[in-house]
Amino acid sequence: MKPIRKNFGSDNVGPVSPAILNAMIEANEGAVPSYGADAWTARLQTVVRDVFETEVDVFAVATGTAANALALSAMVPTYGAVYCDASAHIDTDECGAPEFFTGGAKLLGLPSRDGRLSPAALTAHLEAGRGIGVHKSRPTALSITQATEWGTIYGVKDVQAIGETARGLGLSLHMDGARFANALATLGCSPADITWKAGIDVLSLGATKNGAMAAEAVVFFRRDLAEEFSRRRKRAGHLWSKSRYLSAQLVAYLTDDLWLRNARQANAMATRLARGLLELDGVGLLHEVQSNEVFAVLPEPVIGRLEAAGFTFYRWYLPAGDTPVPGTAPVRLVTGLDTEAADVDALLVEARG
Amino acid sequence: MKPIRKNFGSDNVGPVSPAILNAMIEANEGAVPSYGADAWTARLQTVVRDVFETEVDVFAVATGTAANALALSAMVPTYGAVYCDASAHIDTDECGAPEFFTGGAKLLGLPSRDGRLSPAALTAHLEAGRGIGVHKSRPTALSITQATEWGTIYGVKDVQAIGETARGLGLSLHMDGARFANALATLGCSPADITWKAGIDVLSLGATKNGAMAAEAVVFFRRDLAEEFSRRRKRAGHLWSKSRYLSAQLVAYLTDDLWLRNARQANAMATRLARGLLELDGVGLLHEVQSNEVFAVLPEPVIGRLEAAGFTFYRWYLPAGDTPVPGTAPVRLVTGLDTEAADVDALLVEARG
Amino acid sequence: MKPIRKNFGSDNVGPVSPAILNAMIEANEGAVPSYGADAWTARLQTVVRDVFETEVDVFAVATGTAANALALSAMVPTYGAVYCDASAHIDTDECGAPEFFTGGAKLLGLPSRDGRLSPAALTAHLEAGRGIGVHKSRPTALSITQATEWGTIYGVKDVQAIGETARGLGLSLHMDGARFANALATLGCSPADITWKAGIDVLSLGATKNGAMAAEAVVFFRRDLAEEFSRRRKRAGHLWSKSRYLSAQLVAYLTDDLWLRNARQANAMATRLARGLLELDGVGLLHEVQSNEVFAVLPEPVIGRLEAAGFTFYRWYLPAGDTPVPGTAPVRLVTGLDTEAADVDALLVEARG
Amino acid sequence: MKPIRKNFGSDNVGPVSPAILNAMIEANEGAVPSYGADAWTARLQTVVRDVFETEVDVFAVATGTAANALALSAMVPTYGAVYCDASAHIDTDECGAPEFFTGGAKLLGLPSRDGRLSPAALTAHLEAGRGIGVHKSRPTALSITQATEWGTIYGVKDVQAIGETARGLGLSLHMDGARFANALATLGCSPADITWKAGIDVLSLGATKNGAMAAEAVVFFRRDLAEEFSRRRKRAGHLWSKSRYLSAQLVAYLTDDLWLRNARQANAMATRLARGLLELDGVGLLHEVQSNEVFAVLPEPVIGRLEAAGFTFYRWYLPAGDTPVPGTAPVRLVTGLDTEAADVDALLVEARG
Repeated sequence: MKPIRKNFGSDNVGPVSPAILNAMIEANEGAVPSYGADAWTARLQTVVRDVFETEVDVFAVATGTAANALALSAMVPTYGAVYCDASAHIDTDECGAPEFFTGGAKLLGLPSRDGRLSPAALTAHLEAGRGIGVHKSRPTALSITQATEWGTIYGVKDVQAIGETARGLGLSLHMDGARFANALATLGCSPADITWKAGIDVLSLGATKNGAMAAEAVVFFRRDLAEEFSRRRKRAGHLWSKSRYLSAQLVAYLTDDLWLRNARQANAMATRLARGLLELDGVGLLHEVQSNEVFAVLPEPVIGRLEAAGFTFYRWYLPAGDTPVPGTAPVRLVTGLDTEAADVDALLVEARG
Repeated sequence: MKPIRKNFGSDNVGPVSPAILNAMIEANEGAVPSYGADAWTARLQTVVRDVFETEVDVFAVATGTAANALALSAMVPTYGAVYCDASAHIDTDECGAPEFFTGGAKLLGLPSRDGRLSPAALTAHLEAGRGIGVHKSRPTALSITQATEWGTIYGVKDVQAIGETARGLGLSLHMDGARFANALATLGCSPADITWKAGIDVLSLGATKNGAMAAEAVVFFRRDLAEEFSRRRKRAGHLWSKSRYLSAQLVAYLTDDLWLRNARQANAMATRLARGLLELDGVGLLHEVQSNEVFAVLPEPVIGRLEAAGFTFYRWYLPAGDTPVPGTAPVRLVTGLDTEAADVDALLVEARG
Repeated sequence: MKPIRKNFGSDNVGPVSPAILNAMIEANEGAVPSYGADAWTARLQTVVRDVFETEVDVFAVATGTAANALALSAMVPTYGAVYCDASAHIDTDECGAPEFFTGGAKLLGLPSRDGRLSPAALTAHLEAGRGIGVHKSRPTALSITQATEWGTIYGVKDVQAIGETARGLGLSLHMDGARFANALATLGCSPADITWKAGIDVLSLGATKNGAMAAEAVVFFRRDLAEEFSRRRKRAGHLWSKSRYLSAQLVAYLTDDLWLRNARQANAMATRLARGLLELDGVGLLHEVQSNEVFAVLPEPVIGRLEAAGFTFYRWYLPAGDTPVPGTAPVRLVTGLDTEAADVDALLVEARG
Repeated sequence: MKPIRKNFGSDNVGPVSPAILNAMIEANEGAVPSYGADAWTARLQTVVRDVFETEVDVFAVATGTAANALALSAMVPTYGAVYCDASAHIDTDECGAPEFFTGGAKLLGLPSRDGRLSPAALTAHLEAGRGIGVHKSRPTALSITQATEWGTIYGVKDVQAIGETARGLGLSLHMDGARFANALATLGCSPADITWKAGIDVLSLGATKNGAMAAEAVVFFRRDLAEEFSRRRKRAGHLWSKSRYLSAQLVAYLTDDLWLRNARQANAMATRLARGLLELDGVGLLHEVQSNEVFAVLPEPVIGRLEAAGFTFYRWYLPAGDTPVPGTAPVRLVTGLDTEAADVDALLVEARG
């Protein structure tokens, strides 16, 4: 019997999806050309094109930080700036990777409560201020995160509105899709609808958090931005010589809806978890659960019981402006494709005490 | 029956060693802490320490370019310079990765015939000229490649001599060991003898060309240089969230002499290939075969027959100063751990015509 | 008769102080060694040492942006972060120079109302959050601006408190002293008291806004940080070959209290201007006038009259949190060493209508 | 009586031309807009346009290193490479400034004997090797130095040939004109003939070595490359707030043929010096004297006498491939606009012993 999975710390603690591991094993046959000239990499182009229903340029890398920072380096000059939500991973959790890859461009984080950048905030910032003279880095890109760092989701209309704003301001539009599949599973729309049709120019398409071993794709819908991207990737050390093993992961991920099946499972478990917690006294959600993350305020005794029982998760912080409630603390609980109902229920049992 | 492996283009065209793939599969069990806090990564530290018989700091990354460029970024300030052989991969084949990672340090490539940097050339360069005033980047590191880009090998005494020279000049010493195992298999010495005991401060320990999927280790013998290296790796996008799969490869690689067994096979096949070619009229070796690469001058008809038969390899160039012989061309033929005697012999049959 | 100086736009619109220009003319004699080996540059070291009453390393550059960004590049690694006030020039008006010079370090701007970074805000930020794991740039420096971007001033006790906090956190402490003399003139303390004795490690000592042509000095009180700074300056193109003309400006600036005399004049004119404006209905100051800048809210008709009469100044913005008063607008008026009482009074006449 | 000028070390040891200093004094009048919005800067645009007989974008900076490195940063992406002569100042004497400003582009120095890059060497390098795959930095620019580091000069036809080669290879073409006026004075052609009409896209127009205090101009003939150059200059700390003093230098420099008059004087003195030296036994020139530098081989006793008499100059090195003559040493002697016949003759008297 499978032991209880007590780790709710992140969606990157889980194992690789069997179908993805099998593809890697299948790829492990014979001598094939290196550096992207293999059949799996060719197939990746086709698969991504078909999934997104448009011609694209696709580049696989092993980490989300690489995908984001490389993508931005193709969109922003060294004297440029990138608008993003103040909670964005690129600004808060990548140790300055975007600054490194762009040669020192600035990230301009705009505050929000739920991680969703609003066109109004963007316009307000631009007006509030300060002109775009030679003394300022020139904003040339906008990056949004889908699902956001607070587990919330931009709807198609939301992205369209941001896309229009970005175009109006001459900004190219990047989507950090580390949890893109989780968002897509909730939205139920087509991948095209929530990306290029809504104005996204470049997508960092995550797979690692949702079943891959180490694989993300930078997808260029605006293919002019992909010029020399292969050199950018190479000089950053992100071109695998044995590229087949990177491409095979992504091909499997996007085949037979694996990405959506994995995401649906994780999302369903987050919802189950949130519902169960809400039945307890003193528990509140910081945000509606729309993907695979639960941000909740828990009474300290509950937290204590869970920790004592060996469940792992992070104590978090409150959204800007929220007032702490004495005797409680904010936490983040993340589910993954390998989280099962029994795992969630075991946690809820402990939480109830 | 296994088909003939006709690809002699590179040692990165081959598959993953079964033992390494098995370790990755074995690692694929349950939820474990991410970002290096897993048991495989802990074990990697121990394994490398034991192999090199000294305390070290070890950081796994997926590519050799990342290993080299990150290592150098820890050794050279932005206003610094790195001495290397003019043929060094870091200077010729990494699309400027060292310059990118160091923030614009200079590579000073010194010419040699066989890829081996000599202390005399280094001293001569320093004396030849040019002072080390504020107008010059300050040399702070020296990088040698083992085995070299011409397949040759530094002996223990060679490295010791370079180590002494480096120390005398206040330079830290890096070894690009993309083919370290191939060199070690030939030398027959201990890993310690040819590295830290001979003066190496930081080693890029390759595994990908010799059986791993995508795994290299940056090994710091001078552990003070490793300070904040984890941040450098992170901001370059080279910290895997699911670090166990990277560490598992390296653990398996260094266990039960797998790295040496693989290297011996590849080396033996290169020697067999070179001997066979030398029996043909008009064939010459550009360098003695000391690892798994054969640099030969072949008559054009031989090249033509091989290409027609579907064998792949690169036309190369002559070492600086060599005179071309009409009707011949230089080529590079590389063997791998999965090259077998039957493969080599099949090539030789075609070569003989 | 001298015409009315109607330009209150900035303190960099004025001419060079006669004594400084004379020093440059005096320096223009004969052939002298270049690149800092001249007598004026030697004298600059002595003069700065005497003014600050301690051994220092001094490097002259032509602009404040260069002084700040170069100073920070010596204090912060590429993976580092710099705390500053959210209004700081380094974060808002240098087009990303600190990011460029540091190779992509992050600036962490903490909000304040009056441009003064408080130890409490710093501590709160560090606690609020987010740990300092490998995913975050590591804060290694703190930069404060004296006088601040809002014309306010840190007292000696303020800097001491920040100095203690910085030391406690292991941060080195930088002072952007673009208007250092203006602050010093108000404080009346010794240069040493408000800098190294209070914990400042590196000072960007401005002169250009206060009478020089193009001259700032990076003053290292912590001399270990100055290592290889001359190479940093050279590779940024900020080492003048004819260094005497840069050093001569600074020598003259610091001789016979010229810097303080210039600053006192500018400060006195700002105070006179503020007092005069406050006599008008509907005028308010955003901050107490402590140096040579007046941040005021003016009724639109007043602004209109001044603009119509040819006075130039910038419409500004309100400090974070302030509520706009309908019919008024915030403005910034800056005085310089060449602003005279007649200039201020002429403006006030127009303002009164 | 003017004392003998014994400094033949460099052309940057001399004072500022009176006409240039006077222009700076003239500019020192009243309050004028800063950051390039002044009348002198406007006039600079016109003057340069008229001198070069074409529309251009002009940006003034204080140093040649800044001019070169900023120019290259607008011509070469971070993954790019710049061809130059192996002796080029950008590669050998700017402490890695081009690498810093470009974010790590590579300089590919091609060897020559006399500092003149030949189209044949360029073509040979491209063919010699190594393809331009993703593993190589992509050459996007070519930089030539006029006059060269060996004091030699490219003729109009030479530049035209290089311009054609560059265009054929898709490389933009930069000229480091630190001693452009010295070359022009010798050539006798129009500034247009030797620059944009011959294929130069961007010129670093030097003035500091030839009479200015600290002033160089980046002149864009290909104006599309100038896009956002003002931001590049600002973020590098090279935008002077009091821009009038930078522009005034260059305006005076280019007015009434001052630049050519200064250069002719320096050139004539170099020729006089070379002729005088050649009359001595054992003296040889390493290169024909075509500008204001003399590269000679002198008997050690001659060197000894000159040094003993207080003349200063640099011991140099031989061009690649030259054989040292025992008892002699190579030296570099540089004349300036303020070198007079009496100075040269005094040196020759000592040299003769």
